[in-house]
Amino acid sequence: MGRTSDAREKILTAAQSLIELRGYSALGVAEICKTAGVPKGSFYYFFESKEALALAVIDEHWAIQRRDWTRVLTDGAPPLERLRQLFEETEAEQREGQQSCGTVSGCMFGNLTLEMSNQTEAIRGRLQEIFDAQVAMVEAVVIEARERGEVGVTDTHEAARSVVAQLEGQVLFAKLYNNTSSLGMLWTNCLALLGAQPPQVPVGA
Amino acid sequence: MGRTSDAREKILTAAQSLIELRGYSALGVAEICKTAGVPKGSFYYFFESKEALALAVIDEHWAIQRRDWTRVLTDGAPPLERLRQLFEETEAEQREGQQSCGTVSGCMFGNLTLEMSNQTEAIRGRLQEIFDAQVAMVEAVVIEARERGEVGVTDTHEAARSVVAQLEGQVLFAKLYNNTSSLGMLWTNCLALLGAQPPQVPVGA
Repeated sequence: MGRTSDAREKILTAAQSLIELRGYSALGVAEICKTAGVPKGSFYYFFESKEALALAVIDEHWAIQRRDWTRVLTDGAPPLERLRQLFEETEAEQREGQQSCGTVSGCMFGNLTLEMSNQTEAIRGRLQEIFDAQVAMVEAVVIEARERGEVGVTDTHEAARSVVAQLEGQVLFAKLYNNTSSLGMLWTNCLALLGAQPPQVPVGA
Repeated sequence: MGRTSDAREKILTAAQSLIELRGYSALGVAEICKTAGVPKGSFYYFFESKEALALAVIDEHWAIQRRDWTRVLTDGAPPLERLRQLFEETEAEQREGQQSCGTVSGCMFGNLTLEMSNQTEAIRGRLQEIFDAQVAMVEAVVIEARERGEVGVTDTHEAARSVVAQLEGQVLFAKLYNNTSSLGMLWTNCLALLGAQPPQVPVGA
């Protein structure tokens, strides 16, 4: 069992890094197996198709990201502070990716949405669930902030969706320009989208 | 000349619709020629590579979009009204695409950014120029609105970039959920990002 589960992990790791580098369509099973250093027979032992592999890569990546988002968004800090922390961690993660790969790889879920969502309904469905969950996690924080009178929005769901849309849009620019500095705007923009006041008290107010 | 230029147009039209449906990586020259109804020899007469074709498709699409953006963003209406009009046209265009293809195809430039920008520097460079131009067009309107005292931002460049990022993020969601209704938030969100007041006067204010 040790050996086979090791092969599955190797395939997943190789597929994740190849998808981050080049997207999904450009990949073939043979190349994934070559990069993973496993025979092609192993592939079909673990995954019935390339699409099944893509879903497994997505699930594995989301398990890690959901754990990170949950840690940041449910800790004891004031709600808006938790959102600020989420953006800082996103920026740090993209910067680390850039340092290790040479280029900003962006958000795997955003990348696959624009590449794949109109091509396979299984992948579209999975990506919808992930973005639904992200929006719900942000919305829970926005509701808390509203209960404390810190934000002015009425539709917390649309507001949370707009915050996640802004995140995806700025990560797209970070990837395009291979520069993470635009992610520094996320916190200011989030406050604006939520109708919140910046934490600092204006001089003379 | 009539015949050859016709073949070039056919190749461009076929490539554009195939790229919108399935992205760039998944396409082969043979399939493009088959869809266009032209012999493969014609392809290499007009385009030295698939990448050269992609650049031509991008340029042709941008020529049309730039004309539309210029028309909307430089007409005689008040500046914020012009931005509202841009979002309405974007929503209408995505809705029309959905009605004719069955799915929301999203923004070709955003799609190619997330699929291709880390793979070919020529395509990355062209997409950077296009987004630079979009941000500059929006910024010119934001500057006008600021001169009229209608918006509260200090960094007009970053504000314009954030408006375009929000547009890309919401179009990503429209594609993922095959639903254009989230694009209705663009105007409200743009006002928030620009620190502008909604046009209507609050009751009792």
